[in-house]
Amino acid sequence: MTANIEIISVGNELLIGKTLNTNAQWLAKRLTSLGLNVRRITTTSDDAEEISKTIKEAINHKPNFIITTGGLGPTFDDKTLEGIAKALNAPHELNEQAFKMIEQKYQNYAKEQGVERIELTPARVKMAKLPKNAKPLPNPLGTAPGVIIEHDKTTIVALPGVPPEMKAIFENSLMPILKKTAGDVMFFETSFGVSGIMESELAPLIDKVMHDNPYVYIKSHPKGEERTPHIELHISTTAKDSTIAKNRVSRAIIQITDIIQAKGGKTKPAKTRR
Amino acid sequence: MTANIEIISVGNELLIGKTLNTNAQWLAKRLTSLGLNVRRITTTSDDAEEISKTIKEAINHKPNFIITTGGLGPTFDDKTLEGIAKALNAPHELNEQAFKMIEQKYQNYAKEQGVERIELTPARVKMAKLPKNAKPLPNPLGTAPGVIIEHDKTTIVALPGVPPEMKAIFENSLMPILKKTAGDVMFFETSFGVSGIMESELAPLIDKVMHDNPYVYIKSHPKGEERTPHIELHISTTAKDSTIAKNRVSRAIIQITDIIQAKGGKTKPAKTRR
Repeated sequence: MTANIEIISVGNELLIGKTLNTNAQWLAKRLTSLGLNVRRITTTSDDAEEISKTIKEAINHKPNFIITTGGLGPTFDDKTLEGIAKALNAPHELNEQAFKMIEQKYQNYAKEQGVERIELTPARVKMAKLPKNAKPLPNPLGTAPGVIIEHDKTTIVALPGVPPEMKAIFENSLMPILKKTAGDVMFFETSFGVSGIMESELAPLIDKVMHDNPYVYIKSHPKGEERTPHIELHISTTAKDSTIAKNRVSRAIIQITDIIQAKGGKTKPAKTRR
Repeated sequence: MTANIEIISVGNELLIGKTLNTNAQWLAKRLTSLGLNVRRITTTSDDAEEISKTIKEAINHKPNFIITTGGLGPTFDDKTLEGIAKALNAPHELNEQAFKMIEQKYQNYAKEQGVERIELTPARVKMAKLPKNAKPLPNPLGTAPGVIIEHDKTTIVALPGVPPEMKAIFENSLMPILKKTAGDVMFFETSFGVSGIMESELAPLIDKVMHDNPYVYIKSHPKGEERTPHIELHISTTAKDSTIAKNRVSRAIIQITDIIQAKGGKTKPAKTRR
């Protein structure tokens, strides 16, 4: 059974369309390539009540992991951990280990700036307030630590919204855990262009090829219009072995290419990602 | 009361990180500029059961609108309307009006291609299968019509995933309805850069300025690292009148700029969007 993951992006800037959600895409791509199944991505606001509601709904879906991004910083509207604590009915309290990490950061910053000390204001201490029983994950690039909490069979992980910090904590602290969960599966995908055939005509052909190749998933992405069609066919599979995966996908490509050409369509060479 | 909106993006390509969700950002920006409140954005898979679950959860939040993108086309995995029908416990059946729209499209395509007729295969007829009591919205650029359904106090709108088609149906069919819902409010926003002050030091200052300017929302976006800080401050408000909105935002900017400079920070000129 592939492990299921939900991504929750926290931030008003995403909901007003100011920022494109590249964090979610980066995570989705990274998780998928490990052979894990990203089942849902939800963007919610900087409101503790809304965050709590979103987390509760995700928990109800019983995923193996919930990964949040954003809302870990020092400002008043960084409320992800308060929201998670609320969702879990857990106290939101000072975590000794997180406090030490943050204290150390500001001692280093003070040294760099040649000042005696940087005061640990309430805004700074706030970054060390975690849901009870959570553990901080070191942030090699920024100040706010990531957070990991076990809840029933779901592991909840909170990452910062600043992309380099999010990626660094993911690679350093999360990858070992995720790799263990994923086990020996991997995701393989490729895509190629089709022209001279309408998507509506392709539809039953894809159906047939997917029926004949039960572990292969094929999706058509129309790029032109229905009447002057240019379609991208994306073919993917998850397997325990890259040779198996490639063979499966190749077989499907050969079959569908033959059918498309027999119908008068043209195909462009396959383009493999990752 | 501002109207609440949920966006639901349907598509495995988004969940595997193949595609960046620019549709959701475009919609979020457009809806926000009308003075509407995008409360949540959810990405779900091409599975009818998952789509139905996502729609049901959104309905439970009682938004004024749910806008979906993707999954209206002719292929087997275009299942948005089946998912919506399932969520509403409504039959998923041939809609006469939608059928006529699609029939007309293929008659036009046949004429353009100089063939006598293009057969209305099951894959093509599928695009005319709508939840009972839904109405089709004309698609000026593609084949699959958009769909609108009233359910209790929520209006559910399904748009295609191909960006130009999504945008065209939004502008032609949805804008008049949304403008009526939004009434006389508008969204105003601006942002400016701050350097030489840490985000954790800015946090209580923002707090104070927001307290003094109750209709203004300020959010800090760290762009550098905490120790070599470069921060973008984003300031926004929703008001009935653009003069009121601009005055509010200007007052907040003057106040926060003064405080930042008094603390030794520097500000870069404001940059207004929209």
